[in-house]
Amino acid sequence: MTTAAERNLTWHDVVIKRKDIEELNSHRGATVWFTGLSGSGKSTVADYVARMLHERGVRTAILDGDNIRQGLNNDLGFAPADRTENIRRIGEVGKLFTSFGTINLLAFISPYIADRDNARKIQADGDFVEVYVDAPLAVAEERDPKGLYKKARAGIIPSFTGISAPYEAPEKPEVHLHTDKQTPEESALEVIKKLEDMGIVPAQ
Amino acid sequence: MTTAAERNLTWHDVVIKRKDIEELNSHRGATVWFTGLSGSGKSTVADYVARMLHERGVRTAILDGDNIRQGLNNDLGFAPADRTENIRRIGEVGKLFTSFGTINLLAFISPYIADRDNARKIQADGDFVEVYVDAPLAVAEERDPKGLYKKARAGIIPSFTGISAPYEAPEKPEVHLHTDKQTPEESALEVIKKLEDMGIVPAQ
Repeated sequence: MTTAAERNLTWHDVVIKRKDIEELNSHRGATVWFTGLSGSGKSTVADYVARMLHERGVRTAILDGDNIRQGLNNDLGFAPADRTENIRRIGEVGKLFTSFGTINLLAFISPYIADRDNARKIQADGDFVEVYVDAPLAVAEERDPKGLYKKARAGIIPSFTGISAPYEAPEKPEVHLHTDKQTPEESALEVIKKLEDMGIVPAQ
Repeated sequence: MTTAAERNLTWHDVVIKRKDIEELNSHRGATVWFTGLSGSGKSTVADYVARMLHERGVRTAILDGDNIRQGLNNDLGFAPADRTENIRRIGEVGKLFTSFGTINLLAFISPYIADRDNARKIQADGDFVEVYVDAPLAVAEERDPKGLYKKARAGIIPSFTGISAPYEAPEKPEVHLHTDKQTPEESALEVIKKLEDMGIVPAQ
């Protein structure tokens, strides 16, 4: 058979770059970082965004506690250094998905500004979209989908964000949702509108 | 606006699953794990596989030392425990890409059978394709694309696989390439043939 050299195929032609994949997909890769209290609706909104984008033929990947804490970060606990390392790795995995043209939706409490800013800094401008999933603590605690607030109030879970550990709200998020006043679909549409405005997905 | 409940949208309908993405892509997600000596041709063959699959509209992601050691695993060195953790994390990231329908091509020396088997075990049967990129040490050392063998022979790099550290060849790899006798394209075609036979990509 002919070799690459014989077919005059240059190395530049062989290596697939991010833009090649983005052209195939007809959308850009990006990290959409959902931050907020437990029970604020991060995963729910991310699920709706993924569904709506999927119906447009957009490639998404949801990373959350379920697939990260039990896998990649199963060696980490909840001490401050472990929380920082947890978010550092998640940010790096998000960057990888971005670099291969997938819109990655990351749903983690991620309570510290410094950790989120580090995740933003490792990506190019316009590749990182911070979504503040804002709900009053009382609303989030009332929802308590996993029963964690109850355990935190009982002292069974130490250092629980919002109860016994701080949550540092984003100062300039790309999107600021109010899930106590919006349905998940309305929230998801607001996120997608921002992705359109930033040229990450085509406007409809 | 209508809520999910009003539209009779069930939660099951909202959550995007792996098979939804695979239907959109018209191919399955899978991890293709290239193992072999430095200079055996792992990255070169992976690049060709990615290019050929891209031309078929298949979504790929290449993970290698360049994008892993400088990012996710920039906290790890080359001591045995660090090497094992390096491979563990790479295997978990591969599993994530698989779960979102992307064919991930992982090119790492990964010299230990136990580490590779652990990476295989965390994925479902048929989702992990081990490719032994086999070249005699003398050939790999003659190629020495990064000048690493020269440094290893001079004692500048300690614990270098093939010189001063062991390489444990796969016992039953899905694909066994001989890059001293095959062009990169021939090797890539052999990998793609296996992906077709396993039902990961459609046969052509």
